[in-house]
Amino acid sequence: MEDKIKVIIYGLGVIGGNIAKAILEKKGIEITGVIDIDPQKVGKDMGEILGLPEKTGVIVSNNSKEVFENSSAIAVIHTTSSYLPQVFEQIKECIEARRNVISTCEELSFPYKRHTELADKIDTLARNYGVTVVGTGINPGYLMDTLPLVLTAPCLDVKSIKVTRMMNSAKRRIPFQKKVGTGLTPEEFRKCIEEKRITGHVGLLESINMIASGLGWELDETKELPPEPVIAEKEIETPLCKVEPGKVLGLKSIAFAKMNGKEVISLNFIAHAGVEEEYDEIIIEGNPNIHQKILGGVHGDIGTVAVTINTIPKVINASPGLFTMKDLPVPSATPMDMRVYIKK
Amino acid sequence: MEDKIKVIIYGLGVIGGNIAKAILEKKGIEITGVIDIDPQKVGKDMGEILGLPEKTGVIVSNNSKEVFENSSAIAVIHTTSSYLPQVFEQIKECIEARRNVISTCEELSFPYKRHTELADKIDTLARNYGVTVVGTGINPGYLMDTLPLVLTAPCLDVKSIKVTRMMNSAKRRIPFQKKVGTGLTPEEFRKCIEEKRITGHVGLLESINMIASGLGWELDETKELPPEPVIAEKEIETPLCKVEPGKVLGLKSIAFAKMNGKEVISLNFIAHAGVEEEYDEIIIEGNPNIHQKILGGVHGDIGTVAVTINTIPKVINASPGLFTMKDLPVPSATPMDMRVYIKK
Repeated sequence: MEDKIKVIIYGLGVIGGNIAKAILEKKGIEITGVIDIDPQKVGKDMGEILGLPEKTGVIVSNNSKEVFENSSAIAVIHTTSSYLPQVFEQIKECIEARRNVISTCEELSFPYKRHTELADKIDTLARNYGVTVVGTGINPGYLMDTLPLVLTAPCLDVKSIKVTRMMNSAKRRIPFQKKVGTGLTPEEFRKCIEEKRITGHVGLLESINMIASGLGWELDETKELPPEPVIAEKEIETPLCKVEPGKVLGLKSIAFAKMNGKEVISLNFIAHAGVEEEYDEIIIEGNPNIHQKILGGVHGDIGTVAVTINTIPKVINASPGLFTMKDLPVPSATPMDMRVYIKK
Repeated sequence: MEDKIKVIIYGLGVIGGNIAKAILEKKGIEITGVIDIDPQKVGKDMGEILGLPEKTGVIVSNNSKEVFENSSAIAVIHTTSSYLPQVFEQIKECIEARRNVISTCEELSFPYKRHTELADKIDTLARNYGVTVVGTGINPGYLMDTLPLVLTAPCLDVKSIKVTRMMNSAKRRIPFQKKVGTGLTPEEFRKCIEEKRITGHVGLLESINMIASGLGWELDETKELPPEPVIAEKEIETPLCKVEPGKVLGLKSIAFAKMNGKEVISLNFIAHAGVEEEYDEIIIEGNPNIHQKILGGVHGDIGTVAVTINTIPKVINASPGLFTMKDLPVPSATPMDMRVYIKK
């Protein structure tokens, strides 16, 4: 059989680490290099950082140039930041090293509106160096953009799309519970919003713009509202703390888009403790109407790891340039040896 | 603005007719030729056959060669039969006339297993003539194959997939109600099955094989069971007839696949009068589990028309060869002027 698919991990934080662990359990794919700037990680074996019982033989390096020179790899899994201007130089470096890039940078999932110029630069670079670049993840990248688009396929007409992601944050990891403001007073919550210590969900506008692009819609307004706190009416116990009535259970991030003065896209990201029914819901008003629900929702952490890994073969098979998830072939799982997905 | 996208309709039956009507209502696309062998239709204006108040100026012809010679068109919408061997020569003719082909032929939706040789011939022909060929429709083509695959994207592992399409046949057109055996005695139903006057749903094995291919699964068994009648327990009124207890309300078509001796794919097409809750359901057992439901289901007739029309720009933009829906970019609606979807 062919050599394994070789990848470099760029950023070994929570998401990068979970992706690395999942790749180590997969067949037909191996990690040949890890880049991270955290002094606590540099020089150590990736296995140690991931808390694995055995060493992997791959040492974390803060010298990306050296990693690219010494590690053969067809693609880079990039997970360092949500904001494209912060990661542009890193993406550029990967491209110039002639590696395909799969990034969880939220703003890269549909960069053409917020960062038109950077998107153009990345596309040109990628074409020049013959590699493919895509931003992905569970959301943005899948649940609130690619999947709603797929669900419009049986429609002759689409009037509006409403997506709601309803999550019980108390079931997620502690950092996520903190990120949604669990246990704060409403005043503390508002202060965190002002100081951008709570940002809400990153990527709602990217999802809106991907949907609009897929449907050929020219929007006349897109707007992301500041995250709103969800306040406890009764006491709720969470793994983080006991939330008393009047305190914050979590948040709602809402964004919408208008076309010809009418609201045509509405995205609702709701994550707080005490949610009894978790779900991901897509309501399409059109001909015909489509009302779909994923009962229990999709687990966000596993989802991001899986969507990212499952995108690897699609990116390797794609033609050069900057792509979004809607432009690649239908996304799907890669439960088997990764090599079976690579087109010769 | 550019010229309209021109298409030829090959087969003006129920589905072809509905597609033609929907295209006539769309912007940026026009029908430049219609092929049908029905003597009742040949020589008449398409508008007359479609029951439109006005003539369209397009005359139905049984001379496909002439239509290809005289009608400029970038694609053919082909809707003549469910079975690939019956339509192979027609598809070949379209390809040799250098037209892209979007066909509702069920067996073309994933032809590699049932008709390996024909699939190979079509792919080679399409590449040689520089056109793209795809088989599509609501099912096979979307609900029981493409959509389940899309829903595996957030999964690190997939153990099994179960798809159920639950339809109230009494809400569909009369020919469909007859097709599922409404009002027959169980004996009459079994005779219809034996004589192949009732076939159940065509394309379950194509859907199974598309799912397996998308997941890289090597199946060791695929099986389609003969359609089973669903018997009335109480009297049920339908637009076709009154169904007395003990008589047939409709049918179940079931197919499944095994891998390593275990059932891994199960497709259940259930259509009968008296269904109270219509839905399309996908249950993925994996990491994580995904349980998706389209409440109310997707209307099959509109769905097939829409999926077919919405595939036109994807096929025009694709590279030459035979494709299946899973290999094209994410399917989605085309609510706007069709020309906006065409890449230059």
